[in-house]
Formats: sequence, C-alpha cells, structure tokens
Amino acid sequence: MSKKNVYFFGDGKADGTADMKNLLGGKGANLAEMTNLGIPVPAGFTITTEMCTEYYKNKGKYTPEFKAEVDAALKKIEKSMGMKFGDPGNPLLLSIRSGARSSMPGMMETILNVGLNESTIQGLIKKTNNPRFVWDSYRRLITMYSDVVMEKAAGLEPKEGENIRAQLEEEMDKMKKARGVKNDTELTAEDLQELCKIYKEKVKKVLGKEFPDDPMDQLWGGINAVFQSWNGKRAVAYREIEKIPHDWGTAVNVQAMVFGNMGEDSATGVAFTRNPATGENQFYGEWLPNAQGEDVVAGIRTPNPLNVYGKTEQSAHLPSLEEKYPKLYKQLDEIRKKLEKHYTDMLDIEFTIQEGKLWMLQCRVGKRNGPAAVRMAVEMCKSRLISKETAVLRVSPGQLDELLHPIVDPAAEKKSKIFAKGLPAGPGGACGQIVFTAEEAVAMAKEGKKVILVREETNPEDVEGMRAAVGILTARGGMTSHAALVARGWGMCCIVGAGELEIDYRKKILSANGQKLKGGDWITLNGTKGYVYEGQLPLIDAAEENEFFNEFMKICDSVRTLKVRTNADTAEDARTALKFGAEGIGLFRTEHMFYGKGAEVPLSKLRKMILSKDQNERAKALEELYPFVKNDIKATLEAMDGLPVTIRLLDPPLHEFVPKEKAEIQKLCGELGISQAEFERRADALHELNPMMGHRGVRLGITYPEISEMQIRAILEASAELIQAKKKPLPEIMIPVVSLVGELTEMQAICKRVHDEVAAATGVKKIPYLFGTMIEIPRACLVADKIAEVAEFFSFGTNDLTQMGFGFSRDDAGGFLPVYVEKKLLPEDPFNSLDQEGIGELIQIAVERGRKTRKDIKLGICGEHGGDPASVEFCHRVGLTYVSCSPFRVPIARHSAARAVAREKK
Amino acid sequence: MSKKNVYFFGDGKADGTADMKNLLGGKGANLAEMTNLGIPVPAGFTITTEMCTEYYKNKGKYTPEFKAEVDAALKKIEKSMGMKFGDPGNPLLLSIRSGARSSMPGMMETILNVGLNESTIQGLIKKTNNPRFVWDSYRRLITMYSDVVMEKAAGLEPKEGENIRAQLEEEMDKMKKARGVKNDTELTAEDLQELCKIYKEKVKKVLGKEFPDDPMDQLWGGINAVFQSWNGKRAVAYREIEKIPHDWGTAVNVQAMVFGNMGEDSATGVAFTRNPATGENQFYGEWLPNAQGEDVVAGIRTPNPLNVYGKTEQSAHLPSLEEKYPKLYKQLDEIRKKLEKHYTDMLDIEFTIQEGKLWMLQCRVGKRNGPAAVRMAVEMCKSRLISKETAVLRVSPGQLDELLHPIVDPAAEKKSKIFAKGLPAGPGGACGQIVFTAEEAVAMAKEGKKVILVREETNPEDVEGMRAAVGILTARGGMTSHAALVARGWGMCCIVGAGELEIDYRKKILSANGQKLKGGDWITLNGTKGYVYEGQLPLIDAAEENEFFNEFMKICDSVRTLKVRTNADTAEDARTALKFGAEGIGLFRTEHMFYGKGAEVPLSKLRKMILSKDQNERAKALEELYPFVKNDIKATLEAMDGLPVTIRLLDPPLHEFVPKEKAEIQKLCGELGISQAEFERRADALHELNPMMGHRGVRLGITYPEISEMQIRAILEASAELIQAKKKPLPEIMIPVVSLVGELTEMQAICKRVHDEVAAATGVKKIPYLFGTMIEIPRACLVADKIAEVAEFFSFGTNDLTQMGFGFSRDDAGGFLPVYVEKKLLPEDPFNSLDQEGIGELIQIAVERGRKTRKDIKLGICGEHGGDPASVEFCHRVGLTYVSCSPFRVPIARHSAARAVAREKK
Repeated sequence: MSKKNVYFFGDGKADGTADMKNLLGGKGANLAEMTNLGIPVPAGFTITTEMCTEYYKNKGKYTPEFKAEVDAALKKIEKSMGMKFGDPGNPLLLSIRSGARSSMPGMMETILNVGLNESTIQGLIKKTNNPRFVWDSYRRLITMYSDVVMEKAAGLEPKEGENIRAQLEEEMDKMKKARGVKNDTELTAEDLQELCKIYKEKVKKVLGKEFPDDPMDQLWGGINAVFQSWNGKRAVAYREIEKIPHDWGTAVNVQAMVFGNMGEDSATGVAFTRNPATGENQFYGEWLPNAQGEDVVAGIRTPNPLNVYGKTEQSAHLPSLEEKYPKLYKQLDEIRKKLEKHYTDMLDIEFTIQEGKLWMLQCRVGKRNGPAAVRMAVEMCKSRLISKETAVLRVSPGQLDELLHPIVDPAAEKKSKIFAKGLPAGPGGACGQIVFTAEEAVAMAKEGKKVILVREETNPEDVEGMRAAVGILTARGGMTSHAALVARGWGMCCIVGAGELEIDYRKKILSANGQKLKGGDWITLNGTKGYVYEGQLPLIDAAEENEFFNEFMKICDSVRTLKVRTNADTAEDARTALKFGAEGIGLFRTEHMFYGKGAEVPLSKLRKMILSKDQNERAKALEELYPFVKNDIKATLEAMDGLPVTIRLLDPPLHEFVPKEKAEIQKLCGELGISQAEFERRADALHELNPMMGHRGVRLGITYPEISEMQIRAILEASAELIQAKKKPLPEIMIPVVSLVGELTEMQAICKRVHDEVAAATGVKKIPYLFGTMIEIPRACLVADKIAEVAEFFSFGTNDLTQMGFGFSRDDAGGFLPVYVEKKLLPEDPFNSLDQEGIGELIQIAVERGRKTRKDIKLGICGEHGGDPASVEFCHRVGLTYVSCSPFRVPIARHSAARAVAREKK
Repeated sequence: MSKKNVYFFGDGKADGTADMKNLLGGKGANLAEMTNLGIPVPAGFTITTEMCTEYYKNKGKYTPEFKAEVDAALKKIEKSMGMKFGDPGNPLLLSIRSGARSSMPGMMETILNVGLNESTIQGLIKKTNNPRFVWDSYRRLITMYSDVVMEKAAGLEPKEGENIRAQLEEEMDKMKKARGVKNDTELTAEDLQELCKIYKEKVKKVLGKEFPDDPMDQLWGGINAVFQSWNGKRAVAYREIEKIPHDWGTAVNVQAMVFGNMGEDSATGVAFTRNPATGENQFYGEWLPNAQGEDVVAGIRTPNPLNVYGKTEQSAHLPSLEEKYPKLYKQLDEIRKKLEKHYTDMLDIEFTIQEGKLWMLQCRVGKRNGPAAVRMAVEMCKSRLISKETAVLRVSPGQLDELLHPIVDPAAEKKSKIFAKGLPAGPGGACGQIVFTAEEAVAMAKEGKKVILVREETNPEDVEGMRAAVGILTARGGMTSHAALVARGWGMCCIVGAGELEIDYRKKILSANGQKLKGGDWITLNGTKGYVYEGQLPLIDAAEENEFFNEFMKICDSVRTLKVRTNADTAEDARTALKFGAEGIGLFRTEHMFYGKGAEVPLSKLRKMILSKDQNERAKALEELYPFVKNDIKATLEAMDGLPVTIRLLDPPLHEFVPKEKAEIQKLCGELGISQAEFERRADALHELNPMMGHRGVRLGITYPEISEMQIRAILEASAELIQAKKKPLPEIMIPVVSLVGELTEMQAICKRVHDEVAAATGVKKIPYLFGTMIEIPRACLVADKIAEVAEFFSFGTNDLTQMGFGFSRDDAGGFLPVYVEKKLLPEDPFNSLDQEGIGELIQIAVERGRKTRKDIKLGICGEHGGDPASVEFCHRVGLTYVSCSPFRVPIARHSAARAVAREKK
C-alpha cells in the first residue's frame, strides 16, 4: 500500500494524534488531537509535511493516488459538516492553512473562504440571508487568493507598492472615497458586490489571468501556494536564522470554514487556560460578538473580557461571555479543563461561535512570562498533573532569571524612546542619576541618591563607585569586560559597549545620536535588553518575595545531582550566596582583597612586595602582607563553616597591581625608599606584551615560592585557628594556570611542609585540606592523568580555557567576536556560553583522564560559564561534581542542573 | 641456582658479552667482548650492577654465596696470570674500577695496585728488581685507598684542604723540600719507602685506623668503596642532571694489574681506530715508553706519535711505536682492525706493554667531531661495514650542524678569556667590529667592514642592519626573541640575552663585568656556545666544501620518507634553500615584504591601509598595495618553479605595523591627510592587551574580507601570468589562526570566486592551487575532522600552538621559562624543541581526525620546530607529509627525517 498523505479529522475521530507533529505540523496534530478528544472541531484534513517534500521532488506534480486521497477526505468533510463544496444550495467553504513542525509565525500563507464563486455566493446569501457578509467574504477571498496564489506562488516579484494586494486596496480606497465613508464596515452589500467585480477585472489586467471560479481549482491553487510558501524568501531566511532544516517541509490544513460574524449569536475569542501573566489557575481570555478571529487580533474593536475574573476597572462594564452566554461559557470551560488535563500544560486556544454553536479552531501550548511559568510549574506539580522533572523543564532559564531582578515596567518602556543601545551585560532594570566618576558615585550614594555610573569603560579602581551605583553603563567593552564581570558577579544591572555614547568627562556631558544629557540627569537602564532610556521609568519587582520561586527551587534541588557552589571573594559575598542556596565556594580569589573597600592597606603591602628588588625585600613585604591575607581567608572560611571553600592562590600577572597614578607612585617610592626612575625600571621589568599568557598563576609560585608559601600558610593557620574555635573549616587549596604536573608537585611539597609546621606550632594535629588545581590551560587537559596523580580536585577555569583554546583574548575579542556571532560563525559568544564542541571536548578529555588516575577526583567548574544554563547542563552531562558561579546566578545553576537530569530522564 | 653475580674474563674466554652493558656496565662488557675475540686482556672479573642494588638493599652485607663467587673468580685470575694474590713470591696486583651502564666520567672511584703490602712489596722488588717502581706503586695505593675507601666510603666529610689526600700530599711536599727536589720523579726508592711509612702513620692518626695490610681486606674494602661511590654526592647530582635512574647501580671491575712502567720494554698508550678529528681511515694515537696510563693523560711528559701517519712538524723527531716496535705495532694494528670490524665503529682503545707483552685495557666507541663523524659514516657505509640507516644514525644532529657554520678556532678559544656569556641563538662563529645601530651596521658594511650589531634587543626596524652584520649580540631576549628568530632564519651567528652586558648607546660603550669596549672594537662570538670574546679570534671553516657532507646528505635522502621544505619569504631565500635541498616552500609569509630591504614603499601603503577610516579608504590603499604584493609572490613562485609554495595570508595583528617614530608618523599623517590626534585615535583603536590572541590572521579576513581578497588575487594572478610564461607555479593558499571551520569556508568562497574572475580575465582556464590552513590554535586540532572538509592541507604552526597550548607568551616567557628548564620542570624550552607529550598530542589528534575526513590530506609543519631534530623525528612518527624550516636548517631536517626512519628499522 502506498504511503498515507492525507489525514482526516472530524466527527470525534481523527487519523492523526498530537504526537505526529513532525508529519502533520503543530497545528494539524493538535486539531486531530482535539477531534479525538470529542471536542467540536470543524472537520478537515491535513496534508503531510512529507507530501511537501514530495511536491518539490516532483516539481509540483501530484500522483493520481494523492488526488484521490484529497477527494476522499473532502467527501468526509462534506459528510461531517452536512454541506457540499461548490454546491450552490448548501455550499461548504474551506480554509487552507500552513502548519510546520516548528512555529514560523507569519512566514507562510493562509487562504480563507475557498469555495466561493458566482453560484455558491447566491446559495450562501440565500442560506444566511446576509448578502453583506457573503460579498465581504468573497472580497477577502479574491484579495488573499490573488496575492498568495496568483502572484507570490507564481513567482512574480512586483516592486513594493505595485503588488496586487496594494492595487486592490487602492480600489477599495477609491470606492470609500466615492461613497464618502471612512471604514470598510460602512460599505454596503451592494458596494462590496461592485468592488468584487472591480477586483476581478483588476486581477485579470494585472496578473493576466482570470480569477478562478471553479472551487476545485481554488482548492488546488491554495494547496500549491502553501507548499510554495515554504520556500518563500522570508521563510527561507527565517529558517536560516532559526536553524530550521529546509527539508522539513510544511503540512497543509484544509478545514471547513466556520464564521463568528454571522450575527449576534455568533462570536469569536482567544483564551489561555490559566492566566499567562501571573500563572494563576484561572481561565483568562477575550471575546467579541459577531466578529471574525482577525478582528480580535487586529485590535480595531476593543474585545470583551472572557469572564468575571478577567474584568478590570477599565473593562468592568463590558459583557463577559460567562455572563452573556453562561451555557456556552460552561461548555468552553469544560473544554479548557479537558485540554489541560490531557495536555498537562497551559494552553492558548481559539474558538468561534457560529449561530450559537461552539467550535474550537486552534489549541497550542501557551506562552507565559517568568513568574507565571514558575507558578504554573509549581501548582501543576503539586496537583500531580506533571512530574517534578516536567515542572523543572516547564521553566526556561530566562524565565527564572526574570524573577531575580527588578525590571523596567514593560508598559512604560513601550511608550519610551530608546536613548542608546548596548550589550545586556547585567540583567534587570535600574534607574538613577548620571555620574561620571567612581568618587562622585560614592559621594552621591552616601547622600542616599541613586546613581548610574557612566564610564568609557571601568577598571579595578572604579570598583568602589560601581558598588555604590544602582547600575553601570559603559561606552566600550564586551560581555566579559571588567564592568560586565563585576556587575554579573553582583547581580547588578549593567549595559556595556554602548558604542553610540560619547562621554565628555570634562564637561560632564553624555550624548548619543545628537541628544545630550548632563551629570545628575536621570536615566533608566534595561539591562536585560541593553536599552538606555532618558528619564525615570518605573521599575517593577518581578518576584522578590515570590513564594512559588522558593517552592520551585526546592523541586529543582530534589531533582538535580550536580552541586552548586559560588564564586565569592568576601565573607559578605559568601553569606549572600548561602541565601541563594550555594553549597560551598568554588572560587575564592585571593587577589580580590586588593580591590575595592578596605583594600588600601593590603594593596600598598602587595605593591611593596611586587616591586621589591630581591628575595629579602620581598620576604619582608610578604610578612607585612600576611595578617591581611590570613584574616581575609579566615572570615570567609568562618562564614562558610562546614562547607568547602576553594581558595585560589595569586593568579594575575603582578604588573596589574603596579600603580598608575602619580600620587600613588610617589607614595610607593617613599615606602620603598627608591627614586621614581628606579620605580619605573622595576615596573618596566614586570611589563608584558601578552600578560594573559605571561608570568602569572603558578608561574609566580615557581619563580617566587615564598609568595605561594605565604598564602598557603595563611590558609592553614586560619583553618587551625577556626578548628581551635570548634569550627569546621574545609579549605581546598587551588593552584592556577598549571600546564605541567611538575608545577603542582612543587606546590604540593610546600603545602605538606607548611601544614606540618603549622600543625606543630598550633597543636592542631591534622588540618584537613584538599590540594588541587585549576584546569585552564589546554595542555593541562591532555596530561590530566598525570596531574591527577597529585591533584585531589580539578576546577575547570573555562574563561582561560576558552581564551587559550580559541586563541581569543577576552580583552581584545571585541574587535572581531561580534562579527563572528553576527555571521553565525559561532552560535554564541563562547565567553558567555561554553563552546561545547571544542573547549567542551578539552574538558571531556580532562575528566576522562583525571578519573582514570583518581577515581574519586572532585571535578568542578569556576568561571563565568558556571552560571550559564547550557554550560551547566553540559557540566552535568560530562559528570562534573559541581559548578560554581556568582551568588546571584546560583538559582539559575540549581535550575539548570535539575533540567539536565530531567532531560536525561525524558 | 642462585643468580650469577660475578662474570669472569680471561684466557680468551669471558662469561659476558658486549651486549650485557646493563648488567656489566660499559667497561666490563667491552672487556668481556675483547677477551672473547681473543684479544689479550689482563684477566679479571666484573661484579654486576644488580649486585650494587643488592648491596644497598642489604645495607652493605654480602651473602656467603657471593663471597665464594668472588673467591672462585680470583682463583681464575691467578691461574690465568700465573701469579697469586698476596703471594710474597709472585704477587698478583689488582685494579678495582667502577663501570656504570651509562658513562659517568670522573664521578666514581678507582683503586690501583691492590694487593701490595709489607710482604708482597718485597716479593715484587725481588721479581722486578725495581724498588723505586714498587714503593711508588705502594705510595699510590695508600693515597687512593685512604682517600676512597677509608675516608669517602666511610662517610667522613672533612673540610676542603683537610681531607686525607691533601694531608698526604703535604707530606710529599715536605719530603721534596727536605730533599731539595722539585718533581716526584726525582725522589729515590728510599725516599719513597720512607714516605710510605710517614703516609701510613698519618693515615692512622687522621683516620684513626691502620692502613690494611691484608690483601683480601684491601680487595673487599675497594669493592665496597666503588659501590659506595655510586651514591656519592657528586654522582647523585650528576645523575639528577643527566636523568640517569638511581636504581641502575654500578658494576665493579676487578682486574689483574699490568704495568707500562716496568722499564724500557714497557709502554702505555691510547689510540683511535680512525682519526677522530678528520675521520680519515688511519690509525691514530699516542704512546709513552716506560709509563703508566695516567702519565699519558696527565700531560707531564709529551707523548710520542703512535705511527708515522700521526707525526706532525712538531713531533717528527719523536719515535713512533710503529718505528720502534714494528712487531708490537703490527699486533696492535691487527687488533684495531679486528675491533673495528667487530664493533663496526671507530673505537677509542687503551693499551699497555709490559716487558714486551701487549695488553688491551679498554675499548669503547670513540668520540669524534662533526666532520669526522660524517666522513666515517660515509666511508663505513661505502665499504659496507655499516648500512645506510646505521650511517645516518652515526652522525648526531649537532655534529652535522658543525659542518654548516664557520666556527671559532677551538685552540684559540681555549686561550682566550670570555668577555660575556649569553644564549646560543645562532650557531657558528663570527668576528667583527662593534656597532650599536642598524644604520651604522649598514654604513660600515658598505665600506666592506665586518660588523657585529650589538643591541639591547632587536625589532623589525633593525632588520636591514642585521642583514649587514656578520653576527648579532643582544643583552635581552630569549631563544625565540626577534634577533634569535631572524638569525636562525639566515643561519647567522647570534647570541641573545647576554644579561651581563650593559650598553650605553649615547657614549657607544659596551661593558660587562667591569670591562669596557667601544664602538669599532673587535669582538668574536661563539654562537654555538653563547660566548663573547674580546678581539679577533681566528675562524675556521668547518666544511664549506666537504665532499663527504654531500655524500652523507645523499644517503640521508635515500633513507628518509618525510619531505623537507623551507620557510622563505623572498626569491633570494628560496634560491638559497634550493641549494640546501629544499623540496618546496612550506611557509611564505606575505607580511615579510614589509620588513627589510625595499620595504619602504609597500610598508607605507600597508600603513595607509591599516589606518584607513572606512572600507572605501581601505579599498583604495589595498589597490595601491596590490602590485607590490603580486610581484613579491610572483618572484618567489618563479624561483620555485615546479615546486609547491605555501603562501600564508596576512598573519600579525595590524598594530604591529603602525609607525612609532615621529618622522614616519608625520609622513603617514600627510599621506592620509589626517591630524596627529586623529592618527593617535586610529592607532589606539588598534592597540591590544594580548595581541597574540587578538585581531589577527583569519580574523582580519573575516572582518575585512577585502584584505584577504587582495592577497588571494595577487597569488592567483601571479600564477596565471607564470602559466602564460610556460612556468609551473604550484601555489598553496594558507589561512592562518583558524579555530572554526566557518572561517575557512568564508575564505574558500573568496578563493573560488577570485579564481574564476582571474581565470576569466587572463584566459588561463584553470589555475592549479591548493586551499588549506595553519593548525596553530588548540581548538582547531580538536575539530580537525570538520576543518578537513574544507582544507586540502594542514600546516602545523607549532610556535603558536605551543603558545596557546601552554599559555606561554613567547615574548614574555623569559621571566619564568629559564627557571622551568633549570628546575627540570621541562626537559627543554618548548619553543626550541616540540613538547611531544602535550602539544604533540594535539598534533596527533589533528592528524588522526584530519585524515579520517580527507585520506590524502597534505600535512606539514612550519615554524621553528621544523628545524629541530627531535621535533622532525616526531613529525615523521606521527605521519606528516613534510616539515618546513629555515633554509640553513634544511640539511638538519633532511638528516633528522632519515634518522627517524633508521630508528624505526632498528
């Protein structure tokens, strides 16, 4: 038997089902499913997506078998609807719609009212006693058909404004002018009848062909046109962008027309089975009496609320369907319940009431915002409608993220003009007064003012001011610039690289596209989109105290297996992260005590150490630095009592800490007792051409072991003191930038020696600690088996691994990476979302080899990717023990970890 | 049966053989082998290296079985030599010598004359009638034994100058003073007898023990001491450095003493079976009548030439062994022939004639210099003594290298004081007058003077001056600094990073260690060792016209399978490389036309292009640049007619070409019609923090496709023109810095389009070219399977791959890499010799995956490693098609490629 190409649905029975989306497209599959559920659906049939492929293969020719299938299905529609296609007495009209596997909104074509011609028009007028409705329907058919079938599908490419649709609309305008009316609705039946005649003449003149009068010609023309539209220019471009395969093809849905505009007992509406804005389990929608679907969508008439629940102050006076047609509403509400139970999700439905009879025209999973998604997932899970895993997958990372930041009120945003655009570096909204320096930011914040720090770009010396601000805006830098990294770490609203901005620091003027703002002026940032607005736009709180959020996180935790730690450099960060559910610290950067608040004194000691001329001077400076380092570490270990804290030894190249400002240089020269010239000589010696691949990380420890020793001693002594105070510190000593096992062996020897020294000195016999390494150098991945002989844990430093693996300098990639993403050479900035193909394989190699040597090796990831959903799922798949991310990303990571498990179980 | 620990040799039969080096040590194995060959060797036995390990395991205790083995072997010696150990009438004396698997010269101990005591002394005097000889032998025994056995082996650690040997020498000096004589030899038998008494008293006083009189005590003390010396401080340190495993242990050779100093019919000598300085197949050595081995070595007496061949002007009057004892000489010459035939190599032998009887004491493979090694390999191969593969392996890369550079006369060097030391960046010798700037260098060279360019470090603007100089000396920079790279590329003598140097450019003074030199003063560089000498040292030509060199290279070529290409940026380089046997160009760097001679005009055009403000300006500048690029490429393609030429598109970050000097900046501003401020703005925009991982290579091609297009057009048009001129250009277009297959796809599209355009324009229907990529980014190795879908060849850029793979910036690694090499964290600077473990695996992965996609993919390596012997062998092993290196390294690469095959066949 040959393949089935046509799937009928109607009379409570359908050939297809909801899970046949690939074959029938989303729309067709759902129509079949609803029919099977006994829900009233106008009868129809779906031509498969495979037929579309066939159509192209056979260059538009059909087999007699296929034609016979269509004929048979059409007979069934006629039987089901009790009407006949092309029958002047009781004519059946059809709609022809596309329906792809994956939604391609507005990209393909639809033709309604197919089957109207000179003779069926008369029959329908007789039957409906509504000539205006009929002529209007015919007018619409001519417009759609000539446009879609006779022009586009024929491959004609008229200039803009000269296509047939535009020319027909011109005729309509002429007619309106002639009749002295403004709206289409004011034209009479006679007007429309005349217009149809004019239209048909125009079509013949412009396209050189008669408008077809044979209903079957119309039908086949429509089917062809839908197939043809699959390869329309816009559709092809859309698929290129969305990476939808071109060989999927579209299905064609041919369905009996029903009309919501047949009089006062007709109506049409759209609804959601739950409130898509809040997630509340309430039927929510709109309807219009005596109207067609497009009238609701087009917004020409204000629709009425579906039910009492949906009434607002503004709509309280409007009649709801619930009130006006309680029986029909009850029927609809039952369908709603049936569909939700069946689909186990919130649905978006379309219905039409034709002369008192309810028809369902569409049902599909409904779109929702973040808070609603979370609430629905929690409530559906609680009521056992869905499993925990399904609940986890029902919320996208972006939706969860919506709950974590105050946002700019979307309504207000819609009405405002964008001042400038940049990269969305820190999500959420912020509104404050412009300041141009970190000092100003601090000063104004002290006065209780909300400020937005605006800089060309930021550097570590701005950190204080960044903390004081409510938002950060920079003209330069990318998604991984200093500003972006700091802001994400703090969960702060931030826009970077807004290239249109020009900043005049001297005059304190910020301008963009000809507009100017002064310091102190208000601006509002939408950090989720990267939009800057002039003035104060209202912020709304997405879900600060959202009870469903907490319940949802609990569900996630019960599903996931991957641990989630945080990157925290201070005890304060650590406490914040604990609130967000962190299970330890995956990255504590010792160098961060030299930035920001309270950093002045330790930074000056560090600088002395860096610029000392020999080991002696260095040893002295290290001794002075020691108590600061120890206290810093101790406070964080204490805050994370009982939880592991991975402490990374000094990582950046030393030159980064050399002061650049004159006053500070002079101060340092004084402390060191050296001339400015000598200072410059020493500073120059530290300068590097490619510092990212220079003298940093463990390389400092190999050349100056005393620096590593000082830090290791601080960690172990801090731990010993906490143990004496009955605490449970769990430090993990982490060596950065390792490429050779020998580097680790040397550091391990220092650890062991210092441990024994500290143990002897404090009387704490055994200070528990783990010794491990960052894996952030490509070579380290390849020799991970050897490295695991020494390291008790690996922590993947995916930022550096991405830099070295790609040879992309994060600081400099702004010159080409945006072009790469734009040209789709890369699906995404690999510093935002891990490049799973390349860098991911390096990680996999390291995981495999590390485990081969040390079965129970702890494996984690620190670095920006630990908070990126796709990257977190990758980490779960390759079998890491934990991910670590900034405190504010911890919930996202917990969720993504759960999604990974849920997906595996599917 | 228990393990055999003692291997006897003597009377033409030995328990061991030459291939038992691991068990018997090098010396013992060869003594056994000679014995088996019927060569007269004083009888003896070897205690195995395994026994040494046993000795340490059992804390110095021996089993009775072992002692019995030694006793039995001793009996055999006595029988063979017809003497008895400890027999006053006919005493046998023994030597006890160490002998490890791998030579550890001077690191372990030797004791001679064991067996002498109060009673055997008398017997020996009677037997030899030579009391002075006997007492002198006893004196030597006491000195050696007390030092080696009683002090060192006992673990005593006296201060320097207070050890027993020093104290005994003091006594000797006293005696000489008392007797009023200068030399030991002037002391009489009676003096020596008295001295022995004083020695023995001193030994007892200082070491608290009697000097042992029992020969067996002496024997066992000696054996223990040799075992003990295996773990002497110096020996352990030596093994650490040479990476010799500590558990190998040493063997002990106990052998009957024979004496060359028993009178005028006794003699001793050392010889080489061929001339080790020239390789000539002539017996070559020295001998001394009535002397012991150490007398020849110590140089107190001038030794005589072994034969007439060995006579020089200075030694013509001295008696040769050949003349004086023709029969003995003939016997020795026969042994020489026998040994060479047996060992199939040139040997270094030691012999002693005792009272007219010839004894062989040692034979081992002889050391030789480069020219000799090459000549011997060629001649032995020709005479079928060795196979081609063996011939190839007989010459080390370093030895071959000796032939490729004029060198400082070693004799003159020995007598000169080193002025300063640096890194040996370019081998060979050079002698010239000091100049401090490139301009001076050019000017003086024009006057026909030989100059050495001395700089803090060099940069591309010095290239002209570097070319003009005969040698380069820099105070800073490492083995891969600009100076080093350029010099190696040209095969030029160069020393870099001579940190002791201080250069005062203003005063034109070069100082080091307190010494000063002025501009115009002569200095001599030994670039092979990194030594700088004041003044003019003579240079000698290693083998400019060495006929054996050419024959040797032919042998190499017949053995190797790996192709050898060259890195050449000019037609001139290309011609040089052809002379050295290059089989194509593996790397032609388009950007190198902007450096050095004739670069001024194209460089100014390039700068215009780089600093243009938009695509329009850029397009214009590119058009102006085009003819230069095309001509440059055409000349090189023509020079390599019929051979492949891999042309790399623009690689370095553009900022590298931005002028730094005021005059040039002004000139450029004039050309561009922009202000200095505008220039700075544009130059700043190009500046990068980590340019090595920045906007360069194919990234330039993606963001500015017009740059790639210009170059591709130049290549294809040049080729088309050559084809029209009946030439056979074989260009290979190579894209650098690729990490994503998409990058290549875009470039390939440009290639195809431009090809068709050029083909249409020129009428050359098909311009043959290959399209391929550098593999120099770690990620590219991992996705090599995908990349090979587009690339027809890979060329591994191991410089960058090493940089990214390790995260080592070549320019900055000077701060830590030397420490890494010193600490043995790395066996060698990975920029000199490929890191086979890590970077090598990346290459292997790429090779495997590339071949999987494209079976016949061409695989090569360009970059510095292509001229490094170990790296070349690696390339052969992983199956590359070719290596490419600088013209002067081509012979080294050809040789190493042959060595790889030869090693495989072994």
